[in-house]
Amino acid sequence: MPPVDVSKLPTSETPVKYNRRDLILYAIGIGIDELRYVYELDKNFAAFPTFPIVLPFRGTSFDVIDFIGAQKSSNSRIPGVKLDPAKVLDGERFIEILNPLPLEGELIARSRTSNVYDVGKAAILENETLLVDKSGKPYVKMVGQAFFRDAGGFGGPRPPKQGPEATPPSRPAEKVIAFKTSPTQAQVYRLSGDYNPLHIDPAFSGRVGFKVPILHGLCSWGIAAHSVLKLWGDNDASRFVSYKGRFTAPVLPGETLQTESWLVRTEGDKQIISFQVRIVERNIIAIGGGVAVIKAAGSKL
Amino acid sequence: MPPVDVSKLPTSETPVKYNRRDLILYAIGIGIDELRYVYELDKNFAAFPTFPIVLPFRGTSFDVIDFIGAQKSSNSRIPGVKLDPAKVLDGERFIEILNPLPLEGELIARSRTSNVYDVGKAAILENETLLVDKSGKPYVKMVGQAFFRDAGGFGGPRPPKQGPEATPPSRPAEKVIAFKTSPTQAQVYRLSGDYNPLHIDPAFSGRVGFKVPILHGLCSWGIAAHSVLKLWGDNDASRFVSYKGRFTAPVLPGETLQTESWLVRTEGDKQIISFQVRIVERNIIAIGGGVAVIKAAGSKL
Repeated sequence: MPPVDVSKLPTSETPVKYNRRDLILYAIGIGIDELRYVYELDKNFAAFPTFPIVLPFRGTSFDVIDFIGAQKSSNSRIPGVKLDPAKVLDGERFIEILNPLPLEGELIARSRTSNVYDVGKAAILENETLLVDKSGKPYVKMVGQAFFRDAGGFGGPRPPKQGPEATPPSRPAEKVIAFKTSPTQAQVYRLSGDYNPLHIDPAFSGRVGFKVPILHGLCSWGIAAHSVLKLWGDNDASRFVSYKGRFTAPVLPGETLQTESWLVRTEGDKQIISFQVRIVERNIIAIGGGVAVIKAAGSKL
Repeated sequence: MPPVDVSKLPTSETPVKYNRRDLILYAIGIGIDELRYVYELDKNFAAFPTFPIVLPFRGTSFDVIDFIGAQKSSNSRIPGVKLDPAKVLDGERFIEILNPLPLEGELIARSRTSNVYDVGKAAILENETLLVDKSGKPYVKMVGQAFFRDAGGFGGPRPPKQGPEATPPSRPAEKVIAFKTSPTQAQVYRLSGDYNPLHIDPAFSGRVGFKVPILHGLCSWGIAAHSVLKLWGDNDASRFVSYKGRFTAPVLPGETLQTESWLVRTEGDKQIISFQVRIVERNIIAIGGGVAVIKAAGSKL
């Protein structure tokens, strides 16, 4: 079978809407308590930079949404590749800030399948979303990879090799910080738009093989983003350039996430940070291949 | 000066709007983690009965609101009584469920000043709000008392004597439960509509005499309502009839609230419960004069 020509796949445009309460609720959901992200009258009040990652889940809704229904209707169809939605795992997530996010408003999520990789047993579907305003001004670029088991072997290309910064150096981590999630972390986080019952309903999680509901991968991912920004960017949103991490193990609410990080190199005023996230209680890596780009002190985006 | 004729004071009608995400966020804000109040697909999903108490704060907004501005524009004016908004303290709050609250929608908050009492040094302004739908069907009755220091002596009536159930029996409490608030409890609770900086901004709380931001009185009040319903009503919203409590001391986020309760008498299938709320760390009563009416097991509202 010929490889997939992604340039022929459709681009979707979905309006997304949010307000300051949504910014704060997201920040609380990833364990932030600093006023600059949770208090709308703070003089430095800003969106925590990874907030946009939840917008495609919510669209313009300020309410809970029917997650299962939404998932069914958005099943990707790629000609020549068999994708079973029951066999999908979240792979890697990347975000890049192109312009500071407005504190409220309506944007457009412009999405397309940007790559379809074949890794033998599995297929990796890569989706790229650009958040733009009505004038077309881009704010955020997001790239997500979904890992479909038993969907490989269709003759597609292998994914490109990761840069060396995606492998943590063998020396001890330079900066480390630990965050203990709360037993109700997922109950709060889900109000930002990912209403998948897997993260709250023990009956549901049991049916798909988890004894208890697991934390949202993107919640751990957001927690680690905050950790990295605190360690390398003085917790200043304007120094956050880009960030990515790969989900390697599910986290249970209540577990402690230790972010271990290294300065790999600098490029001009940018620090290239390698990081990984360890579940302290089980000594397992929950997020691997982490790479963040954070502006050095004194420089602003 | 003649006493105030409250029947001549105006009635206001304010639309209020909420959705299931608001119900869940309120429940989390008062420390609830049971699925029936935090998971919209739970088969028993319901509004926690005290939820409506936040609706007048929010109106139809799903965003943060300008609390200080809203407060200024809503200053009560009572002919013949001098009310200084800088000298107001929350007094007592009462709620009665008349019909089960819809899980989402738009209602009207019909409010009026129902009594103006004179206790010598202070005036007590009593406000009554009825939540009704467009057809006029009432769902909830709420009565609040605001205590204005240095506003008494205008010749008004004294408040009526409380029933004996508002004084806790001298015997040891029959049922007790403790809830440890989280250090960020107020950060979450405020997203239900009370954006008063007093509860989050140390600079602001310092100016009005509190070393650290204090927990919302209505947050403690809601936490205790949940405690009482768990102790006497199997945590079943449909058994919650009415509930009131008087704010007697501010609570700091992180403190433990112990609800101490007594069955005072039964009236048909109703249990009349007396309760008080103790701050364990400082052995101070935070809510006194508590009276709840909870249906006995096997009966429904």
